[in-house]
Order: sequence, then structure tokens, then C-alpha cells
Amino acid sequence: MSAPAKKYRFLLIQAFHLPPNTPHAHRSFDGPKEQCLMNYEENKTLLADVEWDLNKGPLVTYGDWPVETREEFCLVAAARLRVVREACEAGRHNAIVLLGGGDPGHVESREIGRRFGVAVTSCANAQMHVATMLGDRFSIIDISETHNMRMRDLVVQYRYSDRCASIRNIDFPLPRPPFTDTRPIDVEKARAERGETSDMLEAALAAAIAAIEDDGAEVLVLGCSAAYWMQSHLERRLAQIGWDVPVLEGYRCAIEQAKLMVDLGLTASGVAFPVDHPRKWRRRKTV
Amino acid sequence: MSAPAKKYRFLLIQAFHLPPNTPHAHRSFDGPKEQCLMNYEENKTLLADVEWDLNKGPLVTYGDWPVETREEFCLVAAARLRVVREACEAGRHNAIVLLGGGDPGHVESREIGRRFGVAVTSCANAQMHVATMLGDRFSIIDISETHNMRMRDLVVQYRYSDRCASIRNIDFPLPRPPFTDTRPIDVEKARAERGETSDMLEAALAAAIAAIEDDGAEVLVLGCSAAYWMQSHLERRLAQIGWDVPVLEGYRCAIEQAKLMVDLGLTASGVAFPVDHPRKWRRRKTV
Amino acid sequence: MSAPAKKYRFLLIQAFHLPPNTPHAHRSFDGPKEQCLMNYEENKTLLADVEWDLNKGPLVTYGDWPVETREEFCLVAAARLRVVREACEAGRHNAIVLLGGGDPGHVESREIGRRFGVAVTSCANAQMHVATMLGDRFSIIDISETHNMRMRDLVVQYRYSDRCASIRNIDFPLPRPPFTDTRPIDVEKARAERGETSDMLEAALAAAIAAIEDDGAEVLVLGCSAAYWMQSHLERRLAQIGWDVPVLEGYRCAIEQAKLMVDLGLTASGVAFPVDHPRKWRRRKTV
Amino acid sequence: MSAPAKKYRFLLIQAFHLPPNTPHAHRSFDGPKEQCLMNYEENKTLLADVEWDLNKGPLVTYGDWPVETREEFCLVAAARLRVVREACEAGRHNAIVLLGGGDPGHVESREIGRRFGVAVTSCANAQMHVATMLGDRFSIIDISETHNMRMRDLVVQYRYSDRCASIRNIDFPLPRPPFTDTRPIDVEKARAERGETSDMLEAALAAAIAAIEDDGAEVLVLGCSAAYWMQSHLERRLAQIGWDVPVLEGYRCAIEQAKLMVDLGLTASGVAFPVDHPRKWRRRKTV
Amino acid sequence: MSAPAKKYRFLLIQAFHLPPNTPHAHRSFDGPKEQCLMNYEENKTLLADVEWDLNKGPLVTYGDWPVETREEFCLVAAARLRVVREACEAGRHNAIVLLGGGDPGHVESREIGRRFGVAVTSCANAQMHVATMLGDRFSIIDISETHNMRMRDLVVQYRYSDRCASIRNIDFPLPRPPFTDTRPIDVEKARAERGETSDMLEAALAAAIAAIEDDGAEVLVLGCSAAYWMQSHLERRLAQIGWDVPVLEGYRCAIEQAKLMVDLGLTASGVAFPVDHPRKWRRRKTV
Amino acid sequence: MSAPAKKYRFLLIQAFHLPPNTPHAHRSFDGPKEQCLMNYEENKTLLADVEWDLNKGPLVTYGDWPVETREEFCLVAAARLRVVREACEAGRHNAIVLLGGGDPGHVESREIGRRFGVAVTSCANAQMHVATMLGDRFSIIDISETHNMRMRDLVVQYRYSDRCASIRNIDFPLPRPPFTDTRPIDVEKARAERGETSDMLEAALAAAIAAIEDDGAEVLVLGCSAAYWMQSHLERRLAQIGWDVPVLEGYRCAIEQAKLMVDLGLTASGVAFPVDHPRKWRRRKTV
Repeated sequence: MSAPAKKYRFLLIQAFHLPPNTPHAHRSFDGPKEQCLMNYEENKTLLADVEWDLNKGPLVTYGDWPVETREEFCLVAAARLRVVREACEAGRHNAIVLLGGGDPGHVESREIGRRFGVAVTSCANAQMHVATMLGDRFSIIDISETHNMRMRDLVVQYRYSDRCASIRNIDFPLPRPPFTDTRPIDVEKARAERGETSDMLEAALAAAIAAIEDDGAEVLVLGCSAAYWMQSHLERRLAQIGWDVPVLEGYRCAIEQAKLMVDLGLTASGVAFPVDHPRKWRRRKTV
Repeated sequence: MSAPAKKYRFLLIQAFHLPPNTPHAHRSFDGPKEQCLMNYEENKTLLADVEWDLNKGPLVTYGDWPVETREEFCLVAAARLRVVREACEAGRHNAIVLLGGGDPGHVESREIGRRFGVAVTSCANAQMHVATMLGDRFSIIDISETHNMRMRDLVVQYRYSDRCASIRNIDFPLPRPPFTDTRPIDVEKARAERGETSDMLEAALAAAIAAIEDDGAEVLVLGCSAAYWMQSHLERRLAQIGWDVPVLEGYRCAIEQAKLMVDLGLTASGVAFPVDHPRKWRRRKTV
Repeated sequence: MSAPAKKYRFLLIQAFHLPPNTPHAHRSFDGPKEQCLMNYEENKTLLADVEWDLNKGPLVTYGDWPVETREEFCLVAAARLRVVREACEAGRHNAIVLLGGGDPGHVESREIGRRFGVAVTSCANAQMHVATMLGDRFSIIDISETHNMRMRDLVVQYRYSDRCASIRNIDFPLPRPPFTDTRPIDVEKARAERGETSDMLEAALAAAIAAIEDDGAEVLVLGCSAAYWMQSHLERRLAQIGWDVPVLEGYRCAIEQAKLMVDLGLTASGVAFPVDHPRKWRRRKTV
Repeated sequence: MSAPAKKYRFLLIQAFHLPPNTPHAHRSFDGPKEQCLMNYEENKTLLADVEWDLNKGPLVTYGDWPVETREEFCLVAAARLRVVREACEAGRHNAIVLLGGGDPGHVESREIGRRFGVAVTSCANAQMHVATMLGDRFSIIDISETHNMRMRDLVVQYRYSDRCASIRNIDFPLPRPPFTDTRPIDVEKARAERGETSDMLEAALAAAIAAIEDDGAEVLVLGCSAAYWMQSHLERRLAQIGWDVPVLEGYRCAIEQAKLMVDLGLTASGVAFPVDHPRKWRRRKTV
Repeated sequence: MSAPAKKYRFLLIQAFHLPPNTPHAHRSFDGPKEQCLMNYEENKTLLADVEWDLNKGPLVTYGDWPVETREEFCLVAAARLRVVREACEAGRHNAIVLLGGGDPGHVESREIGRRFGVAVTSCANAQMHVATMLGDRFSIIDISETHNMRMRDLVVQYRYSDRCASIRNIDFPLPRPPFTDTRPIDVEKARAERGETSDMLEAALAAAIAAIEDDGAEVLVLGCSAAYWMQSHLERRLAQIGWDVPVLEGYRCAIEQAKLMVDLGLTASGVAFPVDHPRKWRRRKTV
Repeated sequence: MSAPAKKYRFLLIQAFHLPPNTPHAHRSFDGPKEQCLMNYEENKTLLADVEWDLNKGPLVTYGDWPVETREEFCLVAAARLRVVREACEAGRHNAIVLLGGGDPGHVESREIGRRFGVAVTSCANAQMHVATMLGDRFSIIDISETHNMRMRDLVVQYRYSDRCASIRNIDFPLPRPPFTDTRPIDVEKARAERGETSDMLEAALAAAIAAIEDDGAEVLVLGCSAAYWMQSHLERRLAQIGWDVPVLEGYRCAIEQAKLMVDLGLTASGVAFPVDHPRKWRRRKTV
């Protein structure tokens, strides 16, 4: 006799994958889902009551390095929409969790998902929602100048401008030609886990302290998913020096938000995400 | 052999209870918890995986009628804080859900809860958080002039001013001397459930349509908990005329937000809710 | 032959009083009104044309120390409402001045006062009104981390978010167990008045300069009433170094605002502070 | 033996005066001060404890009709500054009250006044300050399309944008060639005082109701000083139909604000109104 | 001897083109550039001093109908970026004008353009800039529910929320299966040009009047480029009834903005559109 | 045979001129127009296709030094309006460009110009428009404490508060008795052009860097026209250290904006700048 289906049937979709043999990989693109989902160990508890699949996202077409500029974000957003649409049409999941810190395709995917009754959540969006449950203003600790600007675009688009205290750059850009990645993120993570000094973590700690003391942050949000591994480290280090402040990574926030929406039977407002030729339409919208 | 403890151990605390024999009761104050929790049938699914207790809240001291003015809200807020503190000190729950639409004592209870590692959620606060996950702006459908102003105070205090399209009054005030309650809410609810015309529901429908078409609402939030029973009725009626718009009542939102916070191990930022004599303090706060 | 009644008949109500024998008193709770009103010498000119009584406020119930946390503010707010209501019912005063820097019960007391035709003013509220008559943005110089957060809640609630440049903490918390108050405020005041160095005043001066030079403050507001004594000292010190900037304490602002309202025959808008079952009600409120 | 000087020594300065023989006069420009001050009967109580002089303001240079366009406001503003400067240099007054609804020269006069230790208040500015003491949002009931735009410029300049619910036009423009003033304001006022129907008052009442019910006004502000006579009429009429809402005219608000500032010894912040070559200056200003 | 090169060398890029034989064409996709540029007659004066090429934009991949939903906008945005990049690399133009009302790919194209020293302008963006040169607030007159939401996303993204009075829907959606386009736009335009009644123009006129009278619009912006033909008609009709209000279509605004930027030698700030691995980077961004 | 008239016929009007023999001149007030227009060499390219006249502005009446305080700005504003009105009545120009950094009389001149179909642009206003085409937020680099406050008044009046990151003071006030101008601006300019160190330029560079790094500026705007000469120097110096950031002076921005408006046939909205007794008027304005 088969076990009853779980309440949560989620498809997690990566923002993109890189071609094989790329020298610029910053995470695994193939293998078991548990291996491809960054920081699986920290996240697995929240996935225990979820039937989940992982889609590795679209292959990037602009080169063989991770997405970081606005141009690259737009290209993978469009490509990921096709994955979202197919998943919705297949009908096997009741929520889609868009992985990655810059939320490529978030708004458009929600438009698609709503038509199919599928909740769609994304990391940065979910982090901002959770952050404002915890304090008045959050700062985003993020990896590079170009990625910062993407995060700012999101803050504006999601209407959190007056809740975002700052975006702090720790200057650990993703691998990209012609630059040699002298400080790969997995090395930084490994160092931190061995109890050694990670320059990335130290930079994040300094940025976090500045965000709290100078910018007015009451909650910290990690920007790029490549920085999510620092969540518990950073929270602990801050607590050690006396700052009892939540640090939020995106995967868990997006998964939890998806559960909340499935539990409440919600996807998105049909007024905010109308279909073409809707039965009712509004003469006037305000902004 | 005892069953394993559930993950969620919640205390639901009513905003207040009235003295026995009051002629102004609008809900049950004694009896099994399932009977005292309004609209239990609609909410029980979400409570299935929760070990929950119900506290009937403090006895009102200003009279024998339900809370509706700012003065009355302040009085029950202070009285409810004592319940919150005792519950936190007892340590049997990992979240407190404050029932009632006007959130008396919300901010203060979160200050208390954080010191004890207990998440605290409230109805209006949770509804606003969920509403902004679904659309750009919400309107509050609420029962009376004085209660409306309490809701507005909350919108300001929770910093949702630019996300609140309007507060719409349907003019169904709670029972209060010397007025005779000619349209009791349980009668309205019973009518609606029998498929008869409920003036209250019709007024709410008209207010909801005006909120969508004139005010720019994309999500609807029910204000007073005495109006929560209309949630599914109102959503269905709106869908029938072509408005696919979420209607949010407070109990489910607050319960779900509590689950999310427990899952993520979060209560509130220690920077936003500092203890006295904290180890670290900020020289400067911005607003 | 009796003298004609004065135009202004004010009741000044303290935020709270402490039990006798408390080791945590920071001001006098018993004795002639002139002695219990802090900084009477500085304020007496403004009271010369006022018939005034002083109510010592409710006895705190949470312990024997001054109010400082949000929880404590809510408890004394509720208790003070009873004093306000009784005073309004007694009908001997045409204005009530709520003393204390954190304005416990301000909004609710105005609701009560309006029904009785009694103007109600509070310190922080009045200071913010006066501050914005003098410059674009003000900063609040305040005593402790928890009290700062209360002040911030007030700035938001009073809708002065975009006029408040910052809240600056000088870290002189009120006495509270188990802490030993090594720098009592009356000692600081006495030092300053003797022309000696007061650490509290020096900290306030540094905070004020930072508020002006870094935060954009054009007016300074003292937060906690325990800091009001510094008003003239701080203004003079700032002037000596070249900053011609007003420093506002709360008693005088609240007294003057009460006079203005009595002169103009105003208490509060009946639309903003409606009675229950008002003759007219608004279908829609905006925030 | 001479009586002691009064505490308040105010100079009231009209916005302008018209040439003799103008056919476009809407008020008296010559004669005793009590006759030239519009609505003196309603205002005299507040002036009882004031030594006051009235300056009839500069002669208009653009024609022989009252100021109404932005151009005209700028011209009389500049001309009035000379009156303000001379009065400050003469040193006989401790406050200047700038009469007229459009506040020509307000900001500049405050700059002048501060250097001489003279408080300067203006009607619209004072009305907005008082209005926000009474409710959340105010509407301005005003006379004409061009004057409305001046009022809007003031709301923006005074930073009350988010507190102003609307400006309502009742279309009673001031006399101006080549138009024949078929509905002179003094005739309207006389009608209202005789208990007859005044079209102007009826238009204001309709505008006020719309402001309350549709725009969210909680306080009403009369725009042009030519509309101030309606204050008590309008307030009473609104009360009769159930709206307990304050209506504010400008003279009393500006006089009372001047008293408040004299009592508190304040004029304006030297940081907001710096002198040239100040001893201290700010490297950075925020807006 | 060849004529000197013109100062302006612009590439105009359509948002998309449809496959040949589509039954859902709303404009010409092939032929001379003058024929493919909608409303060429109205625009040609501004192009007289421009060397311009027209790129017909990417072929849509989601079907054979015009872009209207968020999903469709994202897909053509990504496809258009490739056109932009190639044009920049080719180096023959000093500005790129992105045609179409919903600005697909605007922000990303500016990022690309800046690296190559090429100014990039878009219709809606340029219209909003010009609109706020003319009045305080603008309304967008737009064609359909889904397109409205795209326009709103743009208003937020471009930070014009507080300058946009409303978006008004006239309900003339673009052709799309399975709907039969019973009111094709070219028919509407032809009718208007023949002096006959165009339902579309009448709907736009009604929406424009409502925007001015009810929403506070002082300038009107046409949303979808399929509505641009109405510009002069609408402006004239409004003038006839007494509203002297500018109506802005997008092509001319975008062309003029491109000229302004070329004249001033500007493309975009390198701080707002940083390159990857910039020489200087900011530790902190605000939003 | 005469050449055809140029498309652009502009009148450039200085803010003011000083009496002959003043010791406080900071620029030429007499002579050929090319000599009186500061920085003509940098601007002449943009004027090549313009038929332009230069009006030297009104003679100041308050003394013999340049305008810098609010009082002085108001006085020259009124005086300049007469020049504007005469020019509009003369009808020889299709645009008026108001020179000077503090925009005296801008709003009023636009009201006049619109009635005559003449576009009016001003420096600071045009700079803010252009700045927000290039980045999210701009900072103003300005010369003195009093002038800074004028710039801030303009930012508020023009509704750019949330786009202005800061106003930075470099403390180079204009000449004014009784102060000896030890650092005249023409000397600073000459030094910079000779490649020597200019203290003024160095101060501006430091202020610009602080604006970018600390305040969030993405574009820089020079405040006083006496600082415009630094535009190219400052931009180059910033580029040298790695900040690719536009620096905007006012003359070119205002000239280009005038061209744009002439090309588009626009002056200002008749709703925003109504005539007296307009054919249509709005019952309600929002702010």
C-alpha cells in the first residue's frame, strides 16, 4: 500500500546551469538533487515533509559563467519562464520555488503560476517578506557591484524601498572571464566550516556590522545564493559580539513561503496578475 | 506509549472575554476550545498538526461589551500582556497566536516573546504580511467607525501605509449599550450559511467591489474578527461576478505565520526589540 | 471677593509613580506639586497664567522601577487612561497635559478628551509639532536602547517618519534592577548646574553634534523626560561652538500646545476620533 | 504711571494693498486697524492680550486687483520682504504675523526674522501646523483655480504633501478685470450673517462634505483669506449634519502660533535658516 | 563629395515582429522603414536631422500575436537584448531608440549601451521624463488589463510612483487568439482620420477626462504604442472642451531624449550601471 | 538673400546684474553676449543652431553683491519676472532660458511663458531632470551654507526629494561685504585651467567622492552657476580615480531642455499652470 501523497509537492528550479567543462562553475549542475541544491544539509529539515523535484534551470546562452549583470539576468529569466510554463502545464506540483538570489523571472512566473493554480516563490522576494516580519528595516549583504544593482532593482520592484536600509557589497564577485577567481566560494565555505578564517565571511561580518550600526538594519538578508552558506556562521558571529540579529538566506524563506501559500490555498491576486481578456477589469489603477 | 510531541505547540489567546450574563456577547467565551474559537470548522485543517491551547483572554474591565474604541483596545492590550508573559514564563509553547482583529498588545507581546524565544503573531499583522505577498495593495473591510480607526492606527504602526488602498466601513458595529443590536453577527452568519440574504455580507460585498474598482485594492483583508466568517462567502461571491481576488481572515494567516516562524527558528530581531541593558546598542536609529 | 478664574485650567498627569521606598526612584513622587514637577524653575513662567493641578499618575504594577520597555509603557498607558477619564468626567479642567517623554496613552486619551471637550497634549507629540515649526528635520536625543524604540514607535504613529532625522542614544538608562545606577540623573543635573562636567550632558552634546552634522537634524528633541533638564545647557553649549539650534524639552511644548488649543477652542477632529455609533460615518478611509 | 508692556508685541502685515479708487477691492485698505483686519469681531478675543499694529502691506504694482496668480504672489512677496525687514530693524515687535492665505514671502521673512530674534508666522503655514494637531489629513477649501495652485505649491514647500487630502475649488475667484464680479465676497458674507443663503457658503459646504467623504479629510483649512469669514458658519453647518470636524481660518492660527513661539522663546532653527558666513556649517544636507 | 554625417545616428528597434501570415498583426512588419514606423507622418519632422535605421525587432517565439502579458514582455525583452548588443558592437549609431510602449529590455539595454558609449532611450521611460517637465502628475491612458499592469511595473521600476496619478484602461486589447479582433486599431485610426467616430478615441477621451478631473492628472501619457496615433486627436478634443493638457506619445519623446543625451554627451551613470569588476565600487547602496 | 530663421530662438536671461563699480562682481555684466555668458567656450557648440539673445537680468536692489540668501533670491525673482513678461509680450523668442543656479522665478516664469506659448527652462530644474535620466539619485555640489538651503528648497518644490542623495557644501561663498573674498572664483578657474591646484576644485572633488561613496549619489549636479566651470574638470578627475559618473552644469541642461520642448511643441500643462478664469477647472486637486 503506497504512502499518502504529501501535502507539499514542490518543484525547485535553479536560475540557470552552465555548460559542462566550464571553468567558471561555482556549484554543481549535475548529480542527485541533494547534491545540486546548495547547502542541502542546512535545508533538508524543511524539505522533510515535501515531495520535491529539482530542475537545473536553463542553460545560459551568453557564455559559460554565472549570471551577474542585468543583461544576463534578463536572458536567464526568459529562458526560465519556459521551464515554469512546462512545469505548470504538467501539473505535478502545487508550488514552484525559484532558486537563486536575483529572482530572474519572478514576477512573470507568478503570472504564469496563477493561471494554473500553482504558487510561485523566489528567494529575494521571500527573504524581504520574512525580514519585515522581524524588524523595521533590512540590509542586503551581497557579493558584487553588478549583483548589488540587480538586488536594488528588486527592492524597488517589490516595493520595499523604505524598508531596505542598504545594500552592502563585500566584493566577492562570481567567476567570470577574463578574471581569475582567486577566492572561490567553495574554498571560503570549506575554510569557515573547518573553523579557519574565511575572508568572505570576515567581509560579510564587517558589512553586517556596518549595516546595523551605520545604516539602521535590524535584519540581514544575504543577496546572491552563493552567499547563503554564510547564514548560520554570520548569525553566530554577530551573536558572539552582542548583536542578536536574524540573518536570512533565500532557500528556506522561499520554501516556507511556498508552504504558507499552499496551506492557505493562495497563489496571487487575479487583480494584480490578470489574465488577458479577464471577465472583469478595472477602469483605473493606482501605483 | 505516548505520541511524539508535535512540532508546533501554540497558545491562542483571545483579545478579551466578557463577564458571564452579559447581554452583549458576540461569541462564546466558555466551553471547549473548539467551540470558543470562532469559525473552527474553517480553521481546523490548519490546526491539525498543531498542539494548541486556547486562552480566553483577560476579562474586560471597562464594562460588559466587546472592545471597539481606542481606549478599550489599550485596556485589553495591557491586560493581555500579563497572559502573554505568564505563558512565556511557563514555557510550554513555541508560539503565541494573538486572536482578534485589532491586535491589542501585538508589539509589546513580541517584545516579551522574543526574550523567551517564543514567536508571537497577530491577526491584522499577519493578514497584512500575507496580503502583500499576493498583490500590491489591500483594502480592509471592517465593521464600524471606531474599529476602522484602530485598523488605521495599525496600518501606520506596521508601516503599511503605502500598501493599504483603503479601509471600508460596512457599519455593523459590535453590541454595545445603550444600543440594541438589531443585526447580531451570528444571525447574519447563520443566514449566509443557509443560503439566505445576509445584510452584512451584502454590505461587505459592496464595500469589496468599491475597494477593488475605486480604491485600487488587489487583496481584501477582513478587519474585525467578528467579520472573519465572511471570508469564503465573500471570496466566492466576488469570483462569481468575475473578480478573482483573495479575501483574508486573520486566524489562518496568524497561525500560518506562526508555523513559518517556528520552522525558520525566528521570533523577532533583537535589534528591533532590544532588551534593557543590551550587550550592544546602536548610537543612531533611523525611522 | 475672589479673583476671576484663569483662562487655562490644566491637569498635568505624570506617566506613573513608583511605590514608596523604591530604590529606583529618579524623581520625587510626593510633596507639593512644584516639587514633583521636574525642572519646575525652568517651567514656572509658562505656568504663571495657568490654574494647574498635578496628578502623580498611576502606580506601576510591574515592579518598582521607571517605565522603559514597550511592555511597561503599555501597562502604564492603560492605567493612566483611568486617571484621564476620571478627570474628564470631573470637568474641572479644560486641558490635560500628559507628562513623560514616551507619551503613554496619548492617542487613547485624546479620544476620551474629545468626547468631553477637553484638549489633551503630550510631551513627545508636542515637541514634534513644535520642532517642525522650526526646521525641516529633528533628531531625538534619548537615554537608552529600549526607550529609543518607544520613541521610534511614536514617530511612526504620529506620522513624522520623514521629518525625524535620527534617534540618538546617549546610554543613560533609567534605574532598574538588577543594575546599579552608577550615574543617577539627579547627580548629573547637579553637576551641570554647579558648572562641573556631567557625563550625561557631554554625551548629549556629542550626540547632538552628530545629529546635526551627520544625520541632518535642524532641531533637537529630548526624548525621555529624565533628560529634559539638559535643555538649556545643551542649547547653550551648542551655541557656544557655533550651532544656533533649538533644543526642545517636552513640558513647555505640551503646556504651550494646550494653551493654543484652548485659545482656539479645539480638542481633536471628530472624524479622526469618532465616537461609537456616530451620526455620520465615512464609507472609506485612506491611510 | 504707564501700564506694563504686554508680553506679545505683534506686527500684522497684510499681503498687499490696492490703489485707491480701484474697482476690484475685496476688503478695506484704509482706516483703523480694526476695520482693515478682516473678521475682526471673530478674532478680537485672541488679540486682547496683544499689543498689535497693522501694516497694510505693499501696494501692488502689477495692476489694481488682488493677488491670485503665481506671478502676482511672487511680486507681492518681494515687496512685502521690505516691510518685514524694516519692521525687524525697527525692533518694536517680538513677532510678525503675515496675513493672507497664500503666504507670500513666508520662508524668506522667517530668514529675516530669525536674524533679528523675531518670530514670523503666516496663515496657511500655521493652519497646516494646527490641522495636523487635530487629525491625520486636512483638505483645503479654496476659491479659484489659480489660487488653488498657489496653495498646492505651499503644501509641497511646507512638506505636508502626505497630510493634505485634497484642495477643493469652490470657484469664487477674486475680482479681476475684465471680469465683472457678480458674486462679491462681502455680499456673500452679509447674506450668511443675515441667515440668508450664500452661494459661496453652500459651495464651501458641498466641497467640505466631498473632502470628508471622498478625499479622507479630517480637518478643513480655508485657503484664501477672503474665505476665512466662513469658518464658524461652515463648522456649524457641518456639525448640524453630523460631521464634527474643525474648520480652520488663518488669522487665529497664525496669531496663536506666534504666541506659542514667543512664549517658548523660539523663532526658527539657525541650521535651517543659516546666516551667510555662519560660524559652523554642514558639509552635507539631506532633503 | 559626400554630405557631412549628421550629428544624430540612431537605430530604432521595434519591440518585436510577428511571423508572416499571422492573422494577429496590428502593424506592418516589412517594407520601407517609413512604412514600418507607425505614425511616420507625425514623427518625420523630428527625424529630419537624424540618420536613422529601423530594426524590426526579434521574432516572437511564444505564438503569433503581439506582446501583452508580463511573460511575453520578458521573452521579447531577452530577444531584443541580442539586437541591442549587436548594434552596439557594430558601432554605427550613437543612440538606440527602443520602440514600443512597454519598454521591454530598457534597463538592460542601457547597461549594454553605456559600455559602448551609446545612449539608449525607450518610449514609456521618455514619456514619463517629459511628462514631469510639464506638470506634477501624469496618467497613462492604456489599452488593456494586462498591458496596464506592465505599465504599472514600469512606473514602479522607474521610480515615478508618486508622479503617476493613475493608469486608465480603455479596453482595446491587442489581437490575440482565440479572440476575434472586432475593433482593429487601424480601423479606429482610419475612422478618426476621416472625421468619423472612433470608439477607441472616444474611450480614450472619456478616460482622459476622468484622469484629469478625478485622478489629478496634469499630463496624459499614452501607454501602448498601438495607442500613439491618438496623440493629436486626443489633445485637440481635450482642448475643444477646455482642457489645455499635453498628451504624450512615445516615439517623439524617445527620439528627443536621445538627441538631448547625444548633445550632452551622456549615456548613463557608470555608478548606476556598473561594469563587472569596476575599478571603483561602493561599499554601500541605498534604495 | 537672408538666411532662413533658425528653429530655436532663445532668450537667455541672467538672474541679476550688479551695479557698475561694485567690488563684489564674480562675473562680467557688460559686453558682448559671448563674454557675459560664463563658460561660453564649453557651451558654444550647443548654441550653434540657436538664435540667441542674452538679457543681463535685473539690477539687484538690496546691495551690490550677488544673490545668495532666500531673501535675495525672492527679490531678484520678482524683478526678473518683469523681464520675462516683456520678452513674452515681445514675441521674438520661442523659449526662455533662465540662467543661474538657484532658479529665481522659475515656477512663476513658466506660468507666464505658457500663456504666450513660450517654453521656459531653468538651470537647476533642468539639471535635476537630466540627472534622473542617468541614475537613481543625484547629489548637489554647492558653494555655501545659504545657497545650499536655496537648493534644498528647490529640490522640495520640484518634488525631487527622494531622488536627491545630498547637498554637499564646499564652502566657497560668493563675494559679499564685509567679507574679503580671498578665494575669488575666477582665480580658482584660471588655476585649474593652467593645470595648477585649485582649492575650490579640490574641495568639490572631495565632496563629490563623499557624495558617491557615503550618500549614494549616482550623478552629480553643480549648484551655483559660479561652480559650473568645474564640470569637465570634476568629471575628468573622478574618472581618473575610477568613478565614471556624470557631472552636470546648468546652462547646457537648460538649453537642451528648451530645445526638446520646442521640438515637441510643449511649454507646460495648462492644468498645472492654469490661467485665471479658465474655461474648465478641477473640483479637486491632490498633492
